[in-house]
Amino acid sequence: MKVGAILLAAGKGIRANLNVPKQFIEINGREMWEYPFEIAYRISKVEDIIIVTLGEWVKHIEEKVGCKRKKSVTVIEGGDKRQESVYNALKFMSDRDIDVVAIHDTARPMVSKDNFIDCINMAIKYSACTVVSEVVDTMVIVQNDSIEDIAPRSVLYHVQTPQCFQFDVIWRAHNNARENHNVYTDDATLVLKELSMDIKIVKGSRLNIKVTSSEDIELVKYLMSRK
Amino acid sequence: MKVGAILLAAGKGIRANLNVPKQFIEINGREMWEYPFEIAYRISKVEDIIIVTLGEWVKHIEEKVGCKRKKSVTVIEGGDKRQESVYNALKFMSDRDIDVVAIHDTARPMVSKDNFIDCINMAIKYSACTVVSEVVDTMVIVQNDSIEDIAPRSVLYHVQTPQCFQFDVIWRAHNNARENHNVYTDDATLVLKELSMDIKIVKGSRLNIKVTSSEDIELVKYLMSRK
Repeated sequence: MKVGAILLAAGKGIRANLNVPKQFIEINGREMWEYPFEIAYRISKVEDIIIVTLGEWVKHIEEKVGCKRKKSVTVIEGGDKRQESVYNALKFMSDRDIDVVAIHDTARPMVSKDNFIDCINMAIKYSACTVVSEVVDTMVIVQNDSIEDIAPRSVLYHVQTPQCFQFDVIWRAHNNARENHNVYTDDATLVLKELSMDIKIVKGSRLNIKVTSSEDIELVKYLMSRK
Repeated sequence: MKVGAILLAAGKGIRANLNVPKQFIEINGREMWEYPFEIAYRISKVEDIIIVTLGEWVKHIEEKVGCKRKKSVTVIEGGDKRQESVYNALKFMSDRDIDVVAIHDTARPMVSKDNFIDCINMAIKYSACTVVSEVVDTMVIVQNDSIEDIAPRSVLYHVQTPQCFQFDVIWRAHNNARENHNVYTDDATLVLKELSMDIKIVKGSRLNIKVTSSEDIELVKYLMSRK
């Protein structure tokens, strides 16, 4: 059973309005993408790590991971959209005999190692799994600026990453999506919609936030400094 | 047009696991409940403020607000559940000629004055309104630990407070709920379910979080120190 990890660091960070793409922002002495990279690197069953980034940042990451040579780490160039970046990494992986792949957004630097491992194990057993977090507030369905109904909170979850899949499943799903010109914002949705497959969940922490604004960066800095 | 505000500070804070109920935790020199109190007090059209708290904390709050006498501030004892506390406050208000009432959880100390005012104005115009915040992540519907479907994110919102109502509407809705022994966790849901009324929304900030854990308290301390 060979497990690979795809770490997505190809976002342009337009929303965060910074000098560098947000995954390269330094947080307490390390760049954001390094936190999930370290976690993936320290998981013994992950043998093959692909980091997908912007063309002009490939060398930068290669230099940073230069000393990490206990397992295979490859840096490749991503596409314009998240889905293309994942596709590029899957394509690169497709002749490397990977059985299960974990896909993670490096804009979620707070991911826990336990959740990462649990998600991989669920994919080994059930083909497809995503980390999710519970909904805390009452949620409502709004139409035309009025509340239409109360949403069923007990069954609603936030989708996070990592998302883990048996390689043949995610590879087939991505090829289907490409052929059909369907674009998705995450891979669990892509697999669900393209293959109608059962996607399992691992309940993670609310703190595994996705950094999208400079406020979020401040928050992550703070949360990390408290650990 | 007479506007009143009900500030709920009657939670026992069991979940937060602290020495005092969470609304009395000191954050950067002030107790949590004082932040939304100050906001309500500074809104010129709010003439009548009722603070609902635990019996043993009535005197404490009365002493703290002692010097604030430019408008009517009354501290009353709450009930066992949130809904009973609101009911007690509404009952107290019922002979005070209030036209519109804003109900706010003091466990949301980060509320903005602008959202508070907008919500009141919407209730003046349309009878009922709640502050909400947008959903950032993809949301899924989960059944038996598997994803059943993707939730329609664009129409989903988190319900927050303040929630504002014309007094006769919220008073009727609460009396209905009492008669029918229905219990709700917020008043917008109560009015929607009891009276099938149109509830308007005001889009607020994600930062208007509800403090439920000691982690949340740390977060609020941090966010407030940055202002």
